[in-house]
Amino acid sequence: MKKNILIINPVATDKWNATDAEYLRECASVDAFIKVINIEKGPISIESFYDEAFAVPGILELVEENKNNFNGIVINCFADPGVFAAREICCVPIVGPGEVAMLLASMLGHKFSIITVKKSAVPMFEIKAKKMGVEEKLASIEYINIPVLDLEKEAGRTIDELMKSINRATNEKGAEIIVLGCTGMSFLYSDLAKKINIPIVEPAAASLKTLETLIDLKLSCSKAGLFF
Amino acid sequence: MKKNILIINPVATDKWNATDAEYLRECASVDAFIKVINIEKGPISIESFYDEAFAVPGILELVEENKNNFNGIVINCFADPGVFAAREICCVPIVGPGEVAMLLASMLGHKFSIITVKKSAVPMFEIKAKKMGVEEKLASIEYINIPVLDLEKEAGRTIDELMKSINRATNEKGAEIIVLGCTGMSFLYSDLAKKINIPIVEPAAASLKTLETLIDLKLSCSKAGLFF
Amino acid sequence: MKKNILIINPVATDKWNATDAEYLRECASVDAFIKVINIEKGPISIESFYDEAFAVPGILELVEENKNNFNGIVINCFADPGVFAAREICCVPIVGPGEVAMLLASMLGHKFSIITVKKSAVPMFEIKAKKMGVEEKLASIEYINIPVLDLEKEAGRTIDELMKSINRATNEKGAEIIVLGCTGMSFLYSDLAKKINIPIVEPAAASLKTLETLIDLKLSCSKAGLFF
Amino acid sequence: MKKNILIINPVATDKWNATDAEYLRECASVDAFIKVINIEKGPISIESFYDEAFAVPGILELVEENKNNFNGIVINCFADPGVFAAREICCVPIVGPGEVAMLLASMLGHKFSIITVKKSAVPMFEIKAKKMGVEEKLASIEYINIPVLDLEKEAGRTIDELMKSINRATNEKGAEIIVLGCTGMSFLYSDLAKKINIPIVEPAAASLKTLETLIDLKLSCSKAGLFF
Amino acid sequence: MKKNILIINPVATDKWNATDAEYLRECASVDAFIKVINIEKGPISIESFYDEAFAVPGILELVEENKNNFNGIVINCFADPGVFAAREICCVPIVGPGEVAMLLASMLGHKFSIITVKKSAVPMFEIKAKKMGVEEKLASIEYINIPVLDLEKEAGRTIDELMKSINRATNEKGAEIIVLGCTGMSFLYSDLAKKINIPIVEPAAASLKTLETLIDLKLSCSKAGLFF
Amino acid sequence: MKKNILIINPVATDKWNATDAEYLRECASVDAFIKVINIEKGPISIESFYDEAFAVPGILELVEENKNNFNGIVINCFADPGVFAAREICCVPIVGPGEVAMLLASMLGHKFSIITVKKSAVPMFEIKAKKMGVEEKLASIEYINIPVLDLEKEAGRTIDELMKSINRATNEKGAEIIVLGCTGMSFLYSDLAKKINIPIVEPAAASLKTLETLIDLKLSCSKAGLFF
Repeated sequence: MKKNILIINPVATDKWNATDAEYLRECASVDAFIKVINIEKGPISIESFYDEAFAVPGILELVEENKNNFNGIVINCFADPGVFAAREICCVPIVGPGEVAMLLASMLGHKFSIITVKKSAVPMFEIKAKKMGVEEKLASIEYINIPVLDLEKEAGRTIDELMKSINRATNEKGAEIIVLGCTGMSFLYSDLAKKINIPIVEPAAASLKTLETLIDLKLSCSKAGLFF
Repeated sequence: MKKNILIINPVATDKWNATDAEYLRECASVDAFIKVINIEKGPISIESFYDEAFAVPGILELVEENKNNFNGIVINCFADPGVFAAREICCVPIVGPGEVAMLLASMLGHKFSIITVKKSAVPMFEIKAKKMGVEEKLASIEYINIPVLDLEKEAGRTIDELMKSINRATNEKGAEIIVLGCTGMSFLYSDLAKKINIPIVEPAAASLKTLETLIDLKLSCSKAGLFF
Repeated sequence: MKKNILIINPVATDKWNATDAEYLRECASVDAFIKVINIEKGPISIESFYDEAFAVPGILELVEENKNNFNGIVINCFADPGVFAAREICCVPIVGPGEVAMLLASMLGHKFSIITVKKSAVPMFEIKAKKMGVEEKLASIEYINIPVLDLEKEAGRTIDELMKSINRATNEKGAEIIVLGCTGMSFLYSDLAKKINIPIVEPAAASLKTLETLIDLKLSCSKAGLFF
Repeated sequence: MKKNILIINPVATDKWNATDAEYLRECASVDAFIKVINIEKGPISIESFYDEAFAVPGILELVEENKNNFNGIVINCFADPGVFAAREICCVPIVGPGEVAMLLASMLGHKFSIITVKKSAVPMFEIKAKKMGVEEKLASIEYINIPVLDLEKEAGRTIDELMKSINRATNEKGAEIIVLGCTGMSFLYSDLAKKINIPIVEPAAASLKTLETLIDLKLSCSKAGLFF
Repeated sequence: MKKNILIINPVATDKWNATDAEYLRECASVDAFIKVINIEKGPISIESFYDEAFAVPGILELVEENKNNFNGIVINCFADPGVFAAREICCVPIVGPGEVAMLLASMLGHKFSIITVKKSAVPMFEIKAKKMGVEEKLASIEYINIPVLDLEKEAGRTIDELMKSINRATNEKGAEIIVLGCTGMSFLYSDLAKKINIPIVEPAAASLKTLETLIDLKLSCSKAGLFF
Repeated sequence: MKKNILIINPVATDKWNATDAEYLRECASVDAFIKVINIEKGPISIESFYDEAFAVPGILELVEENKNNFNGIVINCFADPGVFAAREICCVPIVGPGEVAMLLASMLGHKFSIITVKKSAVPMFEIKAKKMGVEEKLASIEYINIPVLDLEKEAGRTIDELMKSINRATNEKGAEIIVLGCTGMSFLYSDLAKKINIPIVEPAAASLKTLETLIDLKLSCSKAGLFF
């Protein structure tokens, strides 16, 4: 089935659009067309509830503008900003990388750990896991203490810190699966996957493929309750 | 202790400011000064995640502008829009009527019911109760099916529907306490309280008094985790 | 990516193989090859823990024989018989329709209901939902009281009873999404989907597409804990 | 609103009455009158279920005698002895420092730790947190291993051990807020508050101020269920 | 193994001692010796937290006096008054009918209902089930609205109301097992058991036999934590 | 009451039958007759879901053959293989050592730890505890890393590793009670019980005595729901 898919980068910069498009086209089905756009006004990265608040209006405007031209939308940030509000104004399926990655991970074993960027994201994602109902499948949330904007600049240190966090999660916390807790880590996914022998869920790709599944199954969010 | 308190009505209309100020001054301590303001741009009422998304930036701007001139802030809507984000930029205590009303109610007996305006708020507030940890104290969420903007216009019908919902909650769902699930119902509180003999928690007054408690105890939100 | 997919019907009859193959090929990606086989010895349908016990050894023998020739396996029954044991002897991803359908449904709104065949499946699937962590997203489990082997023979009555159950779930229990609780109901899916305007998750197709997602993402179950 | 408030020290000694009265009058509103009394027969401190059992009859006798002369009652011990039973015989609001402190703390961030006196209180307060519904907001319960009766005598050691426990809670267990788990620690509250920069909830003051809130809001426990 | 067993009726009347002794001797092993005693001061029946508070000191005095002469103790009331405190002063196993009946029932199927005497016991026993960890196995708590002291006097009405409650539990709430929620209903157990074909757990007998099991296995409560 | 009790060792070897019979006869009541048998085809020990799958058909055949000649059946393995399926074909009570040991342990204090043989059993038993509703009473699951078949051969090392695990559970994880997580450890029970001063629950004996209790109380599993 032909699938027109919109990826919204909820940050006020186009610097990741091209690489994200290239990475996601690689994962996409042959019958999928991928377009990556970003919001015009808002934060450069989302690392707090405050950042999220200023990203959401721009996301909703893009959803409004594009909803009739696409078969599905990914809001491309692990925090899933605006996903619930977007579903209220849209009939096509909308997914967030955070929720999809956690649900997929919960199928692959007993417990998973999320590796994220900053300490303040730990309680934020604990609340998120509880909202999704997967809190008992969460072994731990580890953080590498590198801001999103430095992940690529300091790729060597990023991968070192990721490996330390992954080892802590698997050796001390009982993690059997790793979830990357920031879509800005996707560029490191294939390097990481070579270094460790347990499953790693990269949320951007996971959400794209799950969106394709929803489109193929003709499923979208229910309009009979939460998303009225 | 002298207490300067700001009430932010998160709607783009000043129509409720004067009556809210009058009602809340009545409840306030003698040493409290109350000021009610509203956001400039945004929805007229908050009845969906979408409405909430467009109210939050205006709320945060008001918090930013006023945070050094007040000892505490109430964001005056049962959905508690922007409360988490506001706490990240502010040192004085910030409370939401929804969270305060649920916690107070959970002290007054085994189970409470929330009476809200629209069906779509039912799952929204179930998620909220779960986030607060009080989901097992929630007997039910009932709704009266009258939009916020009609509550006052049709006060007679509003009170009839509230009484029907309250009776359903107490007779069929095991509710021992009623929480009004919209700060726009405060004008009916004293009428309702005369009609029924179980406790009714009116969220606007509850949040004002709890904010005073926090100010008097010199307590504010922790900056060591969730609100960084 | 080329995908060789094995569908194991965990029943000792080949009567559904051809129609299942046809139905699932329709849903599959262009690059997927689908083969449907059944166990040789065991029950004709799975409607109890007892039936399941005698189906599992045959399932595991088929997994053992075929695991090197396929990229992924679906064990095609909503009860997911043998899925955990099969993962212990196999490196390719193995999914069950029950677990996949519940996780997908939990993304589409606040609460879903499962419509199953017999009363005795109600506690069985409540336990399953709890094991998956989605028990709080389960509005109810309804049953139509028609044995699996009669679903097709009495298609008219089946669809009538399904509609009654669906209406009960949505009107009285708060369901926003319907999950068909038996893979033997797939032949009715498109008829049902026309009659109701909330999402229906058909578990066989859902598990096939999610298996494709796992294969495309190169994900399989972790061997570091539960599935050693 | 004029508020006559009774503080019942549930121990058979008057040695803390005067200092408690002085401390609590400091926290109270200008329109509140505070009286502190103690039980006649019973334990000198409450550190076990056994101690609690012998304190409760004396508490209930004091409630019975005084209930018509006061607008609200605090049973001044973190274990909240007799609070449920007292509510059955009384129409004015009755609060316990333990329940109030946990609920207030749960509003101030993601997780709190309780610092208590003895190891045996750890499971006791875990059960209490579960009963209140705040168990998922509890980072840990730490203990200083100093009996209640020695807290003041060895104030230096008490404060050292408290600081060690607080550091363990914040550095290793994820606590963002500290709850003092014994009303006998109130004399140290202001010293502690100067030493650390996260919120500390002192339960005696917290319960007094929340009782004032209930009185001002004309709220008391429901008589329609748990407290018949 | 020879077993000296003390049954404490936590009510200030000896009117049930002889019939309880006769009933329990019938259930006991041949090597068990049963003695039934009652408290001297306290309530005549336990139907509230208030009643319980005044029964507990008398219970603890009896435990203290007798603990060296018996191999195990049952505190013979479904509310399990004083069980936790008694364990702190005693090395032999002490059980309560409420906790034992719920745990045995949770082994016999998916969900059980408790049938109790008064409406106010409903929230009390919901809290108890939660404390035991069996709240998800609780289908419902029904009540017959007959005070404990009238159960025998109006035996005909009691059995009629019990049958109505049992039918409601099984037909509408999904109960597969019935737990009698008052030890004062034991005299009706054999009549009831003849009338219905699902398991009925009578708590007095269940606690006696489970106490025998603990004595035979040389198990008693741990002194390393909760019961110090 | 005369009790004919069948113990099914769910392994294809008779090597433990005689010693198990001797050990269990020692624990049994004077009026109980004990017979121990094993399955004919299947695994030699059960240490995975895969082993379990091949043990269950043989267990069910033995239950079918013997169900009319016995008053109750123990399926003698901590994993409780086939217990649910067996209950569907049988009217006499059937118990599993795992479920009984966890429920008894949950009565003896606040938290228990299970000491098992292999790492892969940790998530398996966590899921089991959750299914039983006792997950919040589980302090930890420790493992000694010795295969079942070597427990006796290396009895010295087994007891050393058990003591290390027990110390870890009590000192670091808050365990107040120990549950032996394998019925193959019963031969060490009396040695262990002498070395430590907290309760140890040996599952084989615990399940035998609890089965006797069910037989004496004329209780068996409900046929009205889960076990149809």
